[in-house]
Amino acid sequence: MIVLLTDFGLDGPYTGQVQAALYRQAPGIPVISLFADLAAFDVQGAAYLLPSYTQGFAPGTVFLCVVDPGVGGPRPGMVVRADGRWFVGPGEGLFAILARRAGQIECWRLPDAERAAPSFHARDVFAPVAARLARGGGVTGEAASVETLLQPDWPDDLFRVLYIDRYGNAITGVRAAVIPDGAVLRTGDYLLSQARTFSDVARGVPFWYRNANGLVEIAVSQGRADRELGLRVGTGFRK
Amino acid sequence: MIVLLTDFGLDGPYTGQVQAALYRQAPGIPVISLFADLAAFDVQGAAYLLPSYTQGFAPGTVFLCVVDPGVGGPRPGMVVRADGRWFVGPGEGLFAILARRAGQIECWRLPDAERAAPSFHARDVFAPVAARLARGGGVTGEAASVETLLQPDWPDDLFRVLYIDRYGNAITGVRAAVIPDGAVLRTGDYLLSQARTFSDVARGVPFWYRNANGLVEIAVSQGRADRELGLRVGTGFRK
Amino acid sequence: MIVLLTDFGLDGPYTGQVQAALYRQAPGIPVISLFADLAAFDVQGAAYLLPSYTQGFAPGTVFLCVVDPGVGGPRPGMVVRADGRWFVGPGEGLFAILARRAGQIECWRLPDAERAAPSFHARDVFAPVAARLARGGGVTGEAASVETLLQPDWPDDLFRVLYIDRYGNAITGVRAAVIPDGAVLRTGDYLLSQARTFSDVARGVPFWYRNANGLVEIAVSQGRADRELGLRVGTGFRK
Repeated sequence: MIVLLTDFGLDGPYTGQVQAALYRQAPGIPVISLFADLAAFDVQGAAYLLPSYTQGFAPGTVFLCVVDPGVGGPRPGMVVRADGRWFVGPGEGLFAILARRAGQIECWRLPDAERAAPSFHARDVFAPVAARLARGGGVTGEAASVETLLQPDWPDDLFRVLYIDRYGNAITGVRAAVIPDGAVLRTGDYLLSQARTFSDVARGVPFWYRNANGLVEIAVSQGRADRELGLRVGTGFRK
Repeated sequence: MIVLLTDFGLDGPYTGQVQAALYRQAPGIPVISLFADLAAFDVQGAAYLLPSYTQGFAPGTVFLCVVDPGVGGPRPGMVVRADGRWFVGPGEGLFAILARRAGQIECWRLPDAERAAPSFHARDVFAPVAARLARGGGVTGEAASVETLLQPDWPDDLFRVLYIDRYGNAITGVRAAVIPDGAVLRTGDYLLSQARTFSDVARGVPFWYRNANGLVEIAVSQGRADRELGLRVGTGFRK
Repeated sequence: MIVLLTDFGLDGPYTGQVQAALYRQAPGIPVISLFADLAAFDVQGAAYLLPSYTQGFAPGTVFLCVVDPGVGGPRPGMVVRADGRWFVGPGEGLFAILARRAGQIECWRLPDAERAAPSFHARDVFAPVAARLARGGGVTGEAASVETLLQPDWPDDLFRVLYIDRYGNAITGVRAAVIPDGAVLRTGDYLLSQARTFSDVARGVPFWYRNANGLVEIAVSQGRADRELGLRVGTGFRK
């Protein structure tokens, strides 16, 4: 299976061109979009979502990850193998948190793109590599040090809203496991108690919960946390 | 074929996780999203769209239907077999109109979820059941009375806007077959005559028509009915 | 492979119904959406995007193209074979620029739809034809003159914004090959220099570039050209 995490949007025309390249070069292998609306250009935010949203997939899954403001410039293209899963994409920090948390990790630097459109390496560089890996082919790049992936200055958890979902819920960069059970969180003037899920809370009440991928998420039961609490991508919160 | 009707959005990350679960557990079976943008939490609205938008599919099709404000709470998960098609999802009214209109119907209550994320039964409970049905496996739940699906207080047709499409057309909860041909409908201060399709009407003129799934739909030829007539999900209309 | 270019949106319910028809009638053939958010009713804009966004696909690819304000009216349905690729959709100008630029072209007029929903020929007329072509079946329509496709009054390149992408970049109807390298373009009060790609330009600077499909695209590095330059679909520009 090939899984896309991008800031391309699905409606057009980028995801479709990448899918077409994948279906042509890896026939019969399912292609799924997991995130198509990551915050545009926000490499750091994507880096903190990546490990939590990819950990449930089977070994051998190939993730094509593209938040790539530096496309066409000197930033390298990378292949990462972390705990049996493959990751392909630009190396500007996108795989930094994945690398920090992985048990087993290797990485490779892709050769420079020659005939690629300078604004669309996802289609012309990363998709061919992902298709090859999904077919069971080997890596063609040059082995690189895992240090090249890391961003030593980044914290272990990011106390920021990284993504607003269709309900207005705010997914953050903090693993629920690092917050004591029952802790109260604070964003702006709001205090947020913990709940197990939406239906445990009266309609209209804001709360935080451990979401289905293990991250702290801020929500309002049957309401929109983004509007009601003034949250958007980048908004901070604290314990 | 497995067909999704949800309020998840497609861009991320819920539909992708459900698709991944389905492809893993029912390899080779196509998965299609029919609606990903049902009005959030609006179980009743979804219930009136469901029969009209699923009736054209072949027997054996499995519909995974999730508008689920009560996820993780006491509401049961249900499997319904109606006129040869399968439906899986939460039992809070979502299948009420389907059950009322079906010729042949059976239903089952799913066992309580044990290891499911309390906010994401679609991925952890309903997708495995849908995958099993699509592979030709049997139902694992306990047979239940069809009465548990019904909502006796709900009307046969719902004179409300249930969905605004990308053009600004307003899909309603009323079957065109119950409206006399040529009837004039009224919403707010607007009177709406019937037309066969967009191109039968001059640009900018509002009208109602029998849409391609048999429901009354309110539109403006080459315009946006939502903006021009002040319609949104929940707006009422009458004969 | 069957590739969709439409103004339907992906979230629902039109693309899903078309996909379902295609999977049922052409089992095992991948279906991809390339554009689902073409500007509603803007046949001319779509006509200038079509050749640039379809030229990279393999011979034999079947494109289902639907921007169809005249659906259900007298406009014909067409099948076009251009340089080995198939195109199916309404004949109101959508294939005019494709026909003008193609090396080899043939076209056929589809028989009148009899049992089709008058507002959804994509599902009831065009999808069955596309599925048949994708399976290797022949055309069932009547051979027509290529002149029926052409719009002699339309220019060779359209100096207008045709599409705003998820980043706010503005894709235009002008092939980059007709603009001298290094030319300065002008839109409103803004002068735009050429760049190779985003990362060659300082953050916040507007520019134009040859996009990955060969068209002139107007962008702001790590910004939104639509908001910052006041661009939207229909905005003109000049050399």
